[in-house]
Amino acid sequence: MKFSIKKQLLLEALIKVSKAISTKNLIPVLAGIKFELKKKKLTLTASDNDITIQTIIDADNSDDFKIESEGSIIIQGKYILDIVRKLPEEYINLEVIDELKILIYTENSEFNLNGISDSEYPNIGLEESKKKIDISAGTLKSIVFQTAFASSNEETKPVLTGINFNIVGDILECNSTDSYRLARKVVKLNKESEENYNIVIPSHNLLEFTKILDDDTDNVELHVFSNKILFKTGNLKFESRLINGTYPNTSNLLPDEALLVISTNLNNFYSVIDRVSILTSDKEKNIVTLETNGNTLVLRSSSAEIGRVEEKMVINKNNDEDIKISFSAKYMMEALKSFSTDSVDLHFVGEIKPILIKSTEDETLTQLVLPIRTY
Amino acid sequence: MKFSIKKQLLLEALIKVSKAISTKNLIPVLAGIKFELKKKKLTLTASDNDITIQTIIDADNSDDFKIESEGSIIIQGKYILDIVRKLPEEYINLEVIDELKILIYTENSEFNLNGISDSEYPNIGLEESKKKIDISAGTLKSIVFQTAFASSNEETKPVLTGINFNIVGDILECNSTDSYRLARKVVKLNKESEENYNIVIPSHNLLEFTKILDDDTDNVELHVFSNKILFKTGNLKFESRLINGTYPNTSNLLPDEALLVISTNLNNFYSVIDRVSILTSDKEKNIVTLETNGNTLVLRSSSAEIGRVEEKMVINKNNDEDIKISFSAKYMMEALKSFSTDSVDLHFVGEIKPILIKSTEDETLTQLVLPIRTY
Repeated sequence: MKFSIKKQLLLEALIKVSKAISTKNLIPVLAGIKFELKKKKLTLTASDNDITIQTIIDADNSDDFKIESEGSIIIQGKYILDIVRKLPEEYINLEVIDELKILIYTENSEFNLNGISDSEYPNIGLEESKKKIDISAGTLKSIVFQTAFASSNEETKPVLTGINFNIVGDILECNSTDSYRLARKVVKLNKESEENYNIVIPSHNLLEFTKILDDDTDNVELHVFSNKILFKTGNLKFESRLINGTYPNTSNLLPDEALLVISTNLNNFYSVIDRVSILTSDKEKNIVTLETNGNTLVLRSSSAEIGRVEEKMVINKNNDEDIKISFSAKYMMEALKSFSTDSVDLHFVGEIKPILIKSTEDETLTQLVLPIRTY
Repeated sequence: MKFSIKKQLLLEALIKVSKAISTKNLIPVLAGIKFELKKKKLTLTASDNDITIQTIIDADNSDDFKIESEGSIIIQGKYILDIVRKLPEEYINLEVIDELKILIYTENSEFNLNGISDSEYPNIGLEESKKKIDISAGTLKSIVFQTAFASSNEETKPVLTGINFNIVGDILECNSTDSYRLARKVVKLNKESEENYNIVIPSHNLLEFTKILDDDTDNVELHVFSNKILFKTGNLKFESRLINGTYPNTSNLLPDEALLVISTNLNNFYSVIDRVSILTSDKEKNIVTLETNGNTLVLRSSSAEIGRVEEKMVINKNNDEDIKISFSAKYMMEALKSFSTDSVDLHFVGEIKPILIKSTEDETLTQLVLPIRTY
């Protein structure tokens, strides 16, 4: 294997695949990136057994990527990334000598790295399905941004550490819950899916994938298998394992009829809760109490040791009912942050019933926060 | 105590004094900020027994600070800072009610905090000395930036965790060493000091002080006592304890005559060391080897496991001598970063003698890095 390549081209590819390299991995070969140069394509692959990332650089006959000979080898991921990032020249030469030595050089710099034979790399298929589902990159990013935060971090309930993707026909319903709150996003696909799916994708992996998506990506293909999912876009493939287990049915949590709906400016409401939560503590779930009194909303919190706070704001209501309810300020604020609308509506069913947060400006998103009994 | 004040005015003062509040402090009253309103001055004081910060807001008869009644109380630092930061209004009202309750309010917000009687606050003098020393704020910032990094973090050698300020006449010599490298800055004061001083100030405290200095600060007064130092500028007082013990005499480390002096562009030299150190590890002090060969400088490092690297650059030398010497890339890079000049000179005395880094563009600064034997 011998080639010269534009630094920026190689660097961008390395940054992407490096996200799959775990420093904690016990299998030494997985600390490496597989370089495979074949048929004028350089394929870089990295995997930590949980996710696999692959990206392809095409030789397009320009000076940016000139191939002298083909081949393949595993190069230690941490070092190759650092080297390419820090070399000042515009072009970089890479060459495998003596079978397992990698020479990376420019005019004044010469790095000689120990490589590993590509035969030691696990066989990673990254195969595609014939029944792919297309989704716009923007929609996928929204789904992840608006739901992943509500997933659980506790590995004791593995299925809740993921986002549930439920595909029926041309409807994709995504749910994420840690059993204290729920985020639901429902989007319409451009095309009916040939098959129905009900899968759980690790939230952390979805976040990693949306982070490495280029801003100009239009479309993402989803290839679903029984125990894994492949995301494909342009020259990038990202594969994640799926979480085994049945995702809880969350539909019964969403009430049809509300006792009271209040409408409020999103930013003002967020700031009020932010201030009222100053005197609360994470340990106690940052409990605040909301009370309506005509068109005035009063938010309170108190702590015997620290003191108490009361904030007022004017709201709109859909009827004359009043409500008094307590909830976690942290969860409410995270739910509010997922909206990019000017206003939100809070739907109340009762003091001990879930609070629904919706917006007439974006019907695709529903957030739900469970109340907390304070007496 | 009752007053209304412009939010920004109070916030800036709170941010400054809050740096002296330690969340780890075992004395509850020191988690608080002392508010003292007397003779049209609001004095805020905070202390963690290691440093004390005090700032004064003057009522200048403008609407920005209107006093209704005087008094003093301790308010919990963490909360008052958060409250003032997050209140959206331009003006904030603060009032002590029922002796130990603090009411902080604007039109829609009302915070009611539990306070502590000011009689429980330790007696902190912050007294000034008659023999003050003046130093420009810019010079003090340079001293701290250019020397503090070389101090030790290990509490086993307390005296090395500070910067040695040695004042004789109008010369201030500052030394900082962790016994592997030394940073020395020598500046001329505008006025002869009435007394000579040889003190050690905790590096961490000096860094904190320079962080809260306003950009437009001109002059800083140093008031030195046997066990503490007070920095005073405008309405701000910052007091730090001094470290007991005799600072090692470092002058004998600095050789008079060099075997060889090489001159190089600072940024290029820094980048070369940065790249050569990629394959080294923190654990092994990031050892790199420098070798001259005529006007070519060769830098190398190697690791049996990872590989090896060689970088070349062109330099100027003051004679035909050559040198081969190994040192910690990390220490060399930190020493180089302290220079804001275009070029630096490296003075070599021998393979096992300290390397001196100086610049003809800034005679006030000397950095010294000890070599490491590699054979």
